[in-house]
Amino acid sequence: MTSSASTPAYDDLCQRHRRKHRLQHLHAMASWDQAAFMPPGGAVPRAEALAEMEGLLHQLGTDPALKDLLARAEQEPLDDVQRASLREMQRVWRSANALPQSLVESKSLAISHCEHAWRSQRPANDWAGYVENLRPVVRLIREEARLLSESSGLSKYDALLDQYEPGMRSAEVDRVFGDLRQWLPGLIRQVMERQAGEAVVAPQGPFSTAAQRALGLDAMKLLGFDFAAGRLDESTHPFCGGVPEDVRMTTRYREDSFLQSLTGTIHETGHGRYEQNLPRDWMGLPIAAARSMGLHESQSLSFEMQLASHPGFAGLLEPLVRRHLGDQPAFAADNLHRMMTRVAPGYIRVDADEVTYPAHVILRYEIERPLMEGEIEVEDIPALWDAKMQELLGLDTRGNFKDGPMQDVHWGAGLFGYFPCYTLGAMYAAQWFATMRRERPSLDADIARGELTPVFDWLKDRIWQQGSRYETPELVQRASGEPLNTAHFRRHLEARYLG
Amino acid sequence: MTSSASTPAYDDLCQRHRRKHRLQHLHAMASWDQAAFMPPGGAVPRAEALAEMEGLLHQLGTDPALKDLLARAEQEPLDDVQRASLREMQRVWRSANALPQSLVESKSLAISHCEHAWRSQRPANDWAGYVENLRPVVRLIREEARLLSESSGLSKYDALLDQYEPGMRSAEVDRVFGDLRQWLPGLIRQVMERQAGEAVVAPQGPFSTAAQRALGLDAMKLLGFDFAAGRLDESTHPFCGGVPEDVRMTTRYREDSFLQSLTGTIHETGHGRYEQNLPRDWMGLPIAAARSMGLHESQSLSFEMQLASHPGFAGLLEPLVRRHLGDQPAFAADNLHRMMTRVAPGYIRVDADEVTYPAHVILRYEIERPLMEGEIEVEDIPALWDAKMQELLGLDTRGNFKDGPMQDVHWGAGLFGYFPCYTLGAMYAAQWFATMRRERPSLDADIARGELTPVFDWLKDRIWQQGSRYETPELVQRASGEPLNTAHFRRHLEARYLG
Ligand SMILES: [Zn+2]
Ligand SMILES: [Zn+2]
Repeated sequence: MTSSASTPAYDDLCQRHRRKHRLQHLHAMASWDQAAFMPPGGAVPRAEALAEMEGLLHQLGTDPALKDLLARAEQEPLDDVQRASLREMQRVWRSANALPQSLVESKSLAISHCEHAWRSQRPANDWAGYVENLRPVVRLIREEARLLSESSGLSKYDALLDQYEPGMRSAEVDRVFGDLRQWLPGLIRQVMERQAGEAVVAPQGPFSTAAQRALGLDAMKLLGFDFAAGRLDESTHPFCGGVPEDVRMTTRYREDSFLQSLTGTIHETGHGRYEQNLPRDWMGLPIAAARSMGLHESQSLSFEMQLASHPGFAGLLEPLVRRHLGDQPAFAADNLHRMMTRVAPGYIRVDADEVTYPAHVILRYEIERPLMEGEIEVEDIPALWDAKMQELLGLDTRGNFKDGPMQDVHWGAGLFGYFPCYTLGAMYAAQWFATMRRERPSLDADIARGELTPVFDWLKDRIWQQGSRYETPELVQRASGEPLNTAHFRRHLEARYLG
Repeated sequence: MTSSASTPAYDDLCQRHRRKHRLQHLHAMASWDQAAFMPPGGAVPRAEALAEMEGLLHQLGTDPALKDLLARAEQEPLDDVQRASLREMQRVWRSANALPQSLVESKSLAISHCEHAWRSQRPANDWAGYVENLRPVVRLIREEARLLSESSGLSKYDALLDQYEPGMRSAEVDRVFGDLRQWLPGLIRQVMERQAGEAVVAPQGPFSTAAQRALGLDAMKLLGFDFAAGRLDESTHPFCGGVPEDVRMTTRYREDSFLQSLTGTIHETGHGRYEQNLPRDWMGLPIAAARSMGLHESQSLSFEMQLASHPGFAGLLEPLVRRHLGDQPAFAADNLHRMMTRVAPGYIRVDADEVTYPAHVILRYEIERPLMEGEIEVEDIPALWDAKMQELLGLDTRGNFKDGPMQDVHWGAGLFGYFPCYTLGAMYAAQWFATMRRERPSLDADIARGELTPVFDWLKDRIWQQGSRYETPELVQRASGEPLNTAHFRRHLEARYLG
């Protein structure tokens, strides 16, 4: 990433980013350990050590010299990749420098207070208590949105959304979610009618953690995870962390059920392979990072929904399940596939199937956007929630705050503009597979016979190796030949669930 | 550690040290992970991340502002503990600032080159090759010794020794090793004659790693390890790392033998409990750190040799061994004790029993000291080694470099002045237990009935909780009422092996 042309400012910026990247490596590993291995006595000193490092990284990211370096680099003879790299450096700089230190600190305090209280308020269904802590978070994020909006020229909500999905705008989200809203409730009803007559054999547990772990590792091998560049461990909340050269995935096991851990592991494997295959030549620079939250989710959902819930894939899973968990009627490929594609509206987003999941996301988007634009207040959330749950999923959530707006801690953690990415990811994933099928008509047959290389090669070439070279809309166009198109997601669901 | 009196310079120093400590926490965890869990792909970025942090810590430790702060703190109204704390800050500062950056870098390069080549030269018995790489290391450490000697006023070897055992001088090492040299070879012969007629039943393996791990964890529990503040994992080279609030111990397992891992785990547990019980109020300041390498080893050897090889302790181990490894004649307490106290001269220091171990250390001390003082050269090492092995242990090492001076990588790693600490540690440990026995005549009976609290309380009170408040000679005097006295170590060996 340093050219033969004279680009001293750009080169200096590269050095600074690589230094930050090396320090972030230590932060990433300590965070992983915190979730996966740390005994309770380590909690306080670990939190202090991580906070110290965050302060240091913030200091490096707001070094007054950067502004001038970025301006000078702009004038240097950069090639296309370097120019994209500089654009990403500017994005990182804007995001680190948009907010005054006092706002960063107030936000951090309000969030940790809200999150901490939420842990006991949720089980107590204490909306009145929660809303008192959510209000200051909303106030501070609105202030953040205002500042981000001023520096970027975007609307307030768009300025927040742009942090998670660079280049995505709410006008586009409105368009795609508006379309989804038209046909999704009807589709859900149709699928449920159809599945009502379907018999699913229930697996008989318990399934030992050791056997489930071995099964998960075999699934990861099948999906091409590079164990020389990563590991699988356990944590309460599964995640994919670490660094691209050493990806740390976690899962959790329930002895009464193996499917949750297996599909969770497959999901994280999608995140993991994206990270493992980011462009190594640019490593340490922002251009080498995964593009966005929605793109990341498009990879985990490519693995979990497009691949693992594919009817042909169940035949690949069956021998692995039998090898590790023994022989049961439930483990027949067609039964595994039915288990993995069961559709049922429920209160909880994270437990939702791929058909009802978007309803949960649309609901949140339709609340958080007016909330950020100042059109509604936190007190308005429950009534809107109840109405939309009724409308989208036919469920009554009145008075049930803990399984309603208190089920997620995202808003309490200041994450506004983040929810749409889950469903954008699902739609991108459907679009990737539609493109693969168009380019390679044998795709479904290939998957059924275990020939997954074409899928991995496509994702590697079009997504993983691109890093952050393009903003999301351009990446989508280049990868699939068209902008985000909800028709692919709809066709995917109809083919799989009504076909 | 901040008083009501006005001590702004001292307070500033405390803040700086605590900041460094928080960053060192991340370094410690990443180092532990590097040895225990990291896949091979992580090696290069991890090494770079650790090096970046080392550079940053060095920069913080050589901040030009420190010199003035230390001088100003000297004039402030400090209490006794603060004054000791300042003394340790000065020690840390001197050690970080004694060497010019160019020497630090040349040393680091020469060492990694020498260590790397050693890995293949040792198996090839290639002394001629090794000596070419050892020579520049010796040259650079001599230069370091010269600079440290100039800034401290100590002799060159003493200046090196002082880094590992603050306050210890070679005159004192000469005195105690000179004494040891008088009676040790005779004692070894006597013990061997006596043990020649002893029958030891050999355990029948294999012993699964899982069973050995469970046994090791039970031994750690018996020895009071706090699992809320630490863990046991596996690594090729066992060590005790992490931070006092979260100690990361490792061991390794051989399925054909369980005793190595068990005694190794017990050894590291001694290191671990020292760390876990360092004074929390001073945490983050140099005064809260373990006193020295010799003192640390006195804790691991208190656990491994004084306690675990105690005839009464074998009765505590027997039920644990039977619980995890099954019933075998070899697992009877008296047989376990015989296995753990078998004496035999051998080539390899790390495999040596507690009776022959000091001979290995004396030999190294008698070579490294003149080498550092410039009285001999690296070419002289093999002949000296052969002569001393013959003299001390009656073994012929001629031509066998790989089991001779090439067995350890310490010298190649620039560690001169470090070896004496192993045997100083063994002698301190004997002195601690002699003091405990004097103060509590029931000690041996207490140990035999599993009442270990008096031992732990004594160590906690006299050693662990003292941190680095006193230099080693004063700590020894305060803990045991007298200076280091070799008679205790001799009496310990005679009582155990000839009694
Ligand atoms: Zn995900
Ligand atoms: Zn040790």
